[in-house]
Amino acid sequence: MNDLHEISGKARAAFTDLSVTSVDQRNAALLRMAEYLTGNAESIFAANTEDLRLAEEEGLAAPLLHRLKFGPEKLQQVCSGLKALASLPDPIGQTTYAMEITEDLNLYRVVCPIGVIGVIFESRPDALVQIASLCIKSGNAVLLKGGREALRTNQALAQVIRQALSDTNLSPDCAQLLETREDVAAMLKEDELIDLIIPRGSNAFVRYIMDNSRIPVLGHADGICHVYLDKDADPDMAVRIAVDSKTQNVSVCNAAETLLVHRDIASRVLPAMAEALTEKHVEIRGDQKTAELIQCIPATDEDWSKEYLDYVISVKIVDSLREAIDHINHYGSHHTDCIVTTDPEAANEFMNRVDSAGVYWNVSTRFSDGFVYGFGAEVGIATGKLHARGPMGLDGLTTYKYKLFGKGQTMAEMKSGVRQYTHRKLPLSE
Amino acid sequence: MNDLHEISGKARAAFTDLSVTSVDQRNAALLRMAEYLTGNAESIFAANTEDLRLAEEEGLAAPLLHRLKFGPEKLQQVCSGLKALASLPDPIGQTTYAMEITEDLNLYRVVCPIGVIGVIFESRPDALVQIASLCIKSGNAVLLKGGREALRTNQALAQVIRQALSDTNLSPDCAQLLETREDVAAMLKEDELIDLIIPRGSNAFVRYIMDNSRIPVLGHADGICHVYLDKDADPDMAVRIAVDSKTQNVSVCNAAETLLVHRDIASRVLPAMAEALTEKHVEIRGDQKTAELIQCIPATDEDWSKEYLDYVISVKIVDSLREAIDHINHYGSHHTDCIVTTDPEAANEFMNRVDSAGVYWNVSTRFSDGFVYGFGAEVGIATGKLHARGPMGLDGLTTYKYKLFGKGQTMAEMKSGVRQYTHRKLPLSE
Repeated sequence: MNDLHEISGKARAAFTDLSVTSVDQRNAALLRMAEYLTGNAESIFAANTEDLRLAEEEGLAAPLLHRLKFGPEKLQQVCSGLKALASLPDPIGQTTYAMEITEDLNLYRVVCPIGVIGVIFESRPDALVQIASLCIKSGNAVLLKGGREALRTNQALAQVIRQALSDTNLSPDCAQLLETREDVAAMLKEDELIDLIIPRGSNAFVRYIMDNSRIPVLGHADGICHVYLDKDADPDMAVRIAVDSKTQNVSVCNAAETLLVHRDIASRVLPAMAEALTEKHVEIRGDQKTAELIQCIPATDEDWSKEYLDYVISVKIVDSLREAIDHINHYGSHHTDCIVTTDPEAANEFMNRVDSAGVYWNVSTRFSDGFVYGFGAEVGIATGKLHARGPMGLDGLTTYKYKLFGKGQTMAEMKSGVRQYTHRKLPLSE
Repeated sequence: MNDLHEISGKARAAFTDLSVTSVDQRNAALLRMAEYLTGNAESIFAANTEDLRLAEEEGLAAPLLHRLKFGPEKLQQVCSGLKALASLPDPIGQTTYAMEITEDLNLYRVVCPIGVIGVIFESRPDALVQIASLCIKSGNAVLLKGGREALRTNQALAQVIRQALSDTNLSPDCAQLLETREDVAAMLKEDELIDLIIPRGSNAFVRYIMDNSRIPVLGHADGICHVYLDKDADPDMAVRIAVDSKTQNVSVCNAAETLLVHRDIASRVLPAMAEALTEKHVEIRGDQKTAELIQCIPATDEDWSKEYLDYVISVKIVDSLREAIDHINHYGSHHTDCIVTTDPEAANEFMNRVDSAGVYWNVSTRFSDGFVYGFGAEVGIATGKLHARGPMGLDGLTTYKYKLFGKGQTMAEMKSGVRQYTHRKLPLSE
């Protein structure tokens, strides 16, 4: 077991140096990573082959084995991701507020990195490179804990990344690998040294992290996404969006779990919907009114707050747009919810009142993703409302500090009226 | 004892309606509050007189009695605060990111209120009006718990505020008053209905809140602020800033607790500093090197992490700028720290490397305040790094949601290549 206090302390020291580097220096490290990953492809693939062999022996399911695989195709994706990230503008250093407080006293709010971030992620080795590079680009030091099954691949990748950091004059301690569950438990105690934990994984796992640490957590809990078919929905589009939201990939958080249907359109759209869903092998669990229109399993109250992550969908007929909104705000997880309608007023009402990170009009919930949004990549999808919401890219990895430039002013002078507040806005130059 | 589940549910419903109001409607409510507060001055003053009488009977200390007082002067301050707040631009509704994802699919990140916020504050009744009005202006519903000693005044103020909300067609449940500690304990359990808790009070109290709720907390812990006198500090300015930072108001979080002095300037500046501090009745606790230069009580290691909130200061002589920075990052509370120097390079190094919400050059730490920063008022000062940092005004009470406007696009079309990502930046129109 690693000494997490020592590791976190090293990360903290590395962060302090990293926070004053230029973007050119950070980009050089990213490009060097791509170079070294390619140069060390054989040893990385060998480590991955060993991981795959052991996972197969342990009887890991085929989709998980597929995610674990890191071959030439993944390597190429990861390297182009690094190059794309290096070409993005610096996410830190911008001035977002500038104010003259009193004569010769200027205040600037400047974007800066958060500090030391612990990320716990699933058994996809390419995630390690994405997360580490997003953190480095944004000036943060990172502690990385990947899936147990990917340990050898992650060790090989981390070694290459640390070499690239070192060879571009950044501290290798900017990116350190944790290896065991005990490491994670120990990391959660280092609230003096670690600023943020980003857990990716099951809802129960995120809850475990939150309940066992004083370190702030940005994680996604459930993804209970809804598609609501308004009374003015186009029936063909309704089927297309619902089927895509449910079935394009059932095991992800932005897949739809519940279909809400306005009573005025239910009889027109549900038979075709049932046919399309059944064709995709989706089990339908409907409320009583739904059961009067199509064949389905009776839904219980538990179905409305269940994240199936499977070929199952719950269906409920509602009396009004307002009932749909209330249902979503009550049972949903504030992730991503869609209205299908031709009525702009209904869409507007839905998008303003639904209290979710993503509110969609006439488009599949599957679009809720950092790459899709144009962020290059994401470190996670936040379902909380504070700091970052929805897909988290570089922006979500920054905070700010207030820099105040004075000439010896005292509060006593302000209180006595020797000096006056001017509160004059200044230009937002960098 | 109140039913906090019911109260929180009402607040949630009120928030949903409030989140779609225009800024004119919210401003009208603020102005009506000012009007009604003036119109009901006598009954508010009477309630306050009763609070003061009981507090005196209980032997409340004079400074606390002073804070508890709500007379014509405070009323006038509070009313001009409301008018100033009404004149500020709408903090919600702005688009901060706009991107065409693919043809006819546009993404907008739009600023929106957080939701239901619970604020626990000290025995200053004017704080109730400030906090409630900041929340309403930013579209949030608020649960207010003030100090026990101010209960009658707070009841009178809350009644007037709720009447003003009601008479301007907003739900009075946008601002509800809690009255007991049991109410607070019950509120902490409503993590499904409440989005954020802002506790103002002692460090131990903020910790208690954090350890007893799953609701995110934005609070300030200690304010251990430093003044560092660089080797190139102007000695007169050094004394002026240190004395102001320490003594202008000793009982506030932005008062300085530790003075760090570069060894090259120590013998030149410390005798005058000791004289000035002693004149203000400040007890000096110095490290060994300090004790060789001025009379002082020996400092122990505990002094470096102590928030005195009193006429006491710890003094340490450091060998370098880097030692000062490391000391602050290790022992400080990331609140506000100042360097006094004539050297811009040293100032720059200090401001970049010190990991605090406020990094100051040649100005008293006492300037760390929402009003001073030009925010109109503040709901608190955040010492965490996530979401809001430093004084929290209207900005800190907002989050955002992603609105995606489609024409029936599916992820299957994107994956199959029927549609291509365009990722074209759109203008940031509202």
